[in-house]
Amino acid sequence: MTKTILQQFAVRFEYPVCFTTRAFALDNPVLIETLAASGPGPHKVLCVMDEGVSAGQRDLIRQIEAYFAQHRACARLVCPPIVVPGGESVKNSLNFTEALQSTIHNHKICRQSFVLAIGGGALLDMVGFAAATAHRGVRLVRMPTTALSQDDSGVGVKNSVNAFGKKNFVGTFAPPYAVINDFAFLESLSHRDWIAGIAEAVKVALLKDPAFFSFLDGNAEAIKARDETAMRHAIYRCAELHVRHIGLAGDPFESASSRPLDFGHWSAHKLEFLTRFQLRHGEAVAIGIALDSTYSYLTGRLARADWTRIVSLLARLGFAQYVPELEHRTGPGRFDYTLFQGLEEFREHLGGQLTITLLEGIGKPVDVHEMNFEVVISSIDMLRDGSWALPLSAVCKEGICEELSA
Amino acid sequence: MTKTILQQFAVRFEYPVCFTTRAFALDNPVLIETLAASGPGPHKVLCVMDEGVSAGQRDLIRQIEAYFAQHRACARLVCPPIVVPGGESVKNSLNFTEALQSTIHNHKICRQSFVLAIGGGALLDMVGFAAATAHRGVRLVRMPTTALSQDDSGVGVKNSVNAFGKKNFVGTFAPPYAVINDFAFLESLSHRDWIAGIAEAVKVALLKDPAFFSFLDGNAEAIKARDETAMRHAIYRCAELHVRHIGLAGDPFESASSRPLDFGHWSAHKLEFLTRFQLRHGEAVAIGIALDSTYSYLTGRLARADWTRIVSLLARLGFAQYVPELEHRTGPGRFDYTLFQGLEEFREHLGGQLTITLLEGIGKPVDVHEMNFEVVISSIDMLRDGSWALPLSAVCKEGICEELSA
Repeated sequence: MTKTILQQFAVRFEYPVCFTTRAFALDNPVLIETLAASGPGPHKVLCVMDEGVSAGQRDLIRQIEAYFAQHRACARLVCPPIVVPGGESVKNSLNFTEALQSTIHNHKICRQSFVLAIGGGALLDMVGFAAATAHRGVRLVRMPTTALSQDDSGVGVKNSVNAFGKKNFVGTFAPPYAVINDFAFLESLSHRDWIAGIAEAVKVALLKDPAFFSFLDGNAEAIKARDETAMRHAIYRCAELHVRHIGLAGDPFESASSRPLDFGHWSAHKLEFLTRFQLRHGEAVAIGIALDSTYSYLTGRLARADWTRIVSLLARLGFAQYVPELEHRTGPGRFDYTLFQGLEEFREHLGGQLTITLLEGIGKPVDVHEMNFEVVISSIDMLRDGSWALPLSAVCKEGICEELSA
Repeated sequence: MTKTILQQFAVRFEYPVCFTTRAFALDNPVLIETLAASGPGPHKVLCVMDEGVSAGQRDLIRQIEAYFAQHRACARLVCPPIVVPGGESVKNSLNFTEALQSTIHNHKICRQSFVLAIGGGALLDMVGFAAATAHRGVRLVRMPTTALSQDDSGVGVKNSVNAFGKKNFVGTFAPPYAVINDFAFLESLSHRDWIAGIAEAVKVALLKDPAFFSFLDGNAEAIKARDETAMRHAIYRCAELHVRHIGLAGDPFESASSRPLDFGHWSAHKLEFLTRFQLRHGEAVAIGIALDSTYSYLTGRLARADWTRIVSLLARLGFAQYVPELEHRTGPGRFDYTLFQGLEEFREHLGGQLTITLLEGIGKPVDVHEMNFEVVISSIDMLRDGSWALPLSAVCKEGICEELSA
């Protein structure tokens, strides 16, 4: 006897991504209204904060405590905000995750209590993983503090920690309860973090919105010079495109093989490891965008004018487009670049066929299923030599351009 | 400026729960067709097996290897089946989870490869958690080998490990790729495991299906005597009711406070810990059912005839309805029963208001939001004394029955 019961159901997810300024000002209702929307309080809140944020804003912890004291009828902190290191190191062992879960246990945070995570993308990833797996998921409110996390990872549905030398090897898909993007956090960003935050905006513009690319192109110098209005628009539009993609593209939990938002990321992830995370994620993504745009150009997909527009925009924003780790080698052979491991790791993560997104134009992505190592190497050479600024004849070595465009 | 983007989407989940016999017989197509349905192969398969299963069926590993050798065009084992301990101990540290994720990493199991887990509920929980969090979820095929896992946890959407002395504290909701219930595994079950497997069937019958309860009532001696036809029907119907509840009751990932399938479980979970897992989950659930049925009777909700039918069915199936750990104490006070911690832990897990399911009749569950400790203690007294088999006047101490039914 063989019988089969087919289980089928759908799970609906909904969360707001709010944009505000000075979320902990006593008269700012965004956070408290977000918590109150879950039902009658007082709700328990466990606040976890990025060391870099608390160091940059000495008064923040006091402000947070005053905010919750003011709204004690609705929500209360179960303990003073917990400060943990920011940056990728917090994802490189399970120690922080386990310590946080122990705190969740000790303070009896339940599936209807809140973890409030304040920090950059790495901290949000780690706290998100701890929150998503304690009690199979306690409510997470993300308050991203970097431009990069406000416009990209912080508004999405993933969390993770690193393991076995692989970025994000362990994690879950777990939509947050809410995201609150507080623009005031941008003021205290270092110049590097300010700029790094715009890389995903360039990426999503290239994939989905030529008008947004033109906006970035027209405002590159303003953004670089820390024009807040231009930056806020860039973050809002990038977050909006990201949120829409997750909600509307039909595969929010990535069951297929393609990673349409991960343009430039196969090399970026590998470069982060090769530079021992000295390269910020956004900086690595900028190099990845430059590399895959150059590859798109060299393989005849992308017009030269578009290619130079992309790489020159990255340069005008202040991004490096080359680091020596691009040429880190595993052996003496022609193709023994450590970088190429990134392709297999990228394939392996979603599985199935390798699927890399390239460009046929600005706003015109195209998926390919193999990469020509020779052309990747030529692309690296061109980025190293800054040859995107030179005439075609000066940069095309070994006849590759002619051969490929033939 | 405050702006909000509202993210909304639904994720569809679908998986088959197949019932078969001798899944690794070379001519049994169920498993290989299940894997093949995912697309062109050969698919990588990492097989993880319960020590108790491989010890009970010495030839099983050879059969599994022969099965995959026969079907090598569709699927291949990346290594010989990995044998890990079964039982709750495998959930009591993260060591097994991390070792398994390391194996997933080493064999480059991707999100479109398979982990095939063969074992009892605890092994399936642990392997499920490792698989659900590696690459944010690799495909899991569960092959439950105990009656309890075939009719209950194995067909559901949860996984977990224990932490901080709390059962299932860390885990995720992650529907499997498929479940294959192989009835042949039941043949090698110990008498204890055979009987323990029917506890969740009694529970779900009490909650949802009086006709199924009558079936169990009419077949108790046959089931106890290992009648396979009766047991297979009981498992199929229990699994079907469980699957339907998850799919149709509207809250598959348990975002609300009620746990309508967890009748009898607040005490069962605590008893498992208090007996250091000497009590099987099914055995603990049987005691939990007896306790909450008795409480339902003593509080005037459940008719005496229904109550005695329930507790006598449990007795006829061979379940104990009392263990001394029910009376384990934290102190000398009247209400200092360790068991009562189970109420708060139960509440805390889903959060919000305490919600306990009781019975108003067979097939008539009712939610309550508080438990009277005095009546719980009286219920324990009655179970200890076996007084459900005695006339009412002989068992009602301290006038509770009269008072409560007044």
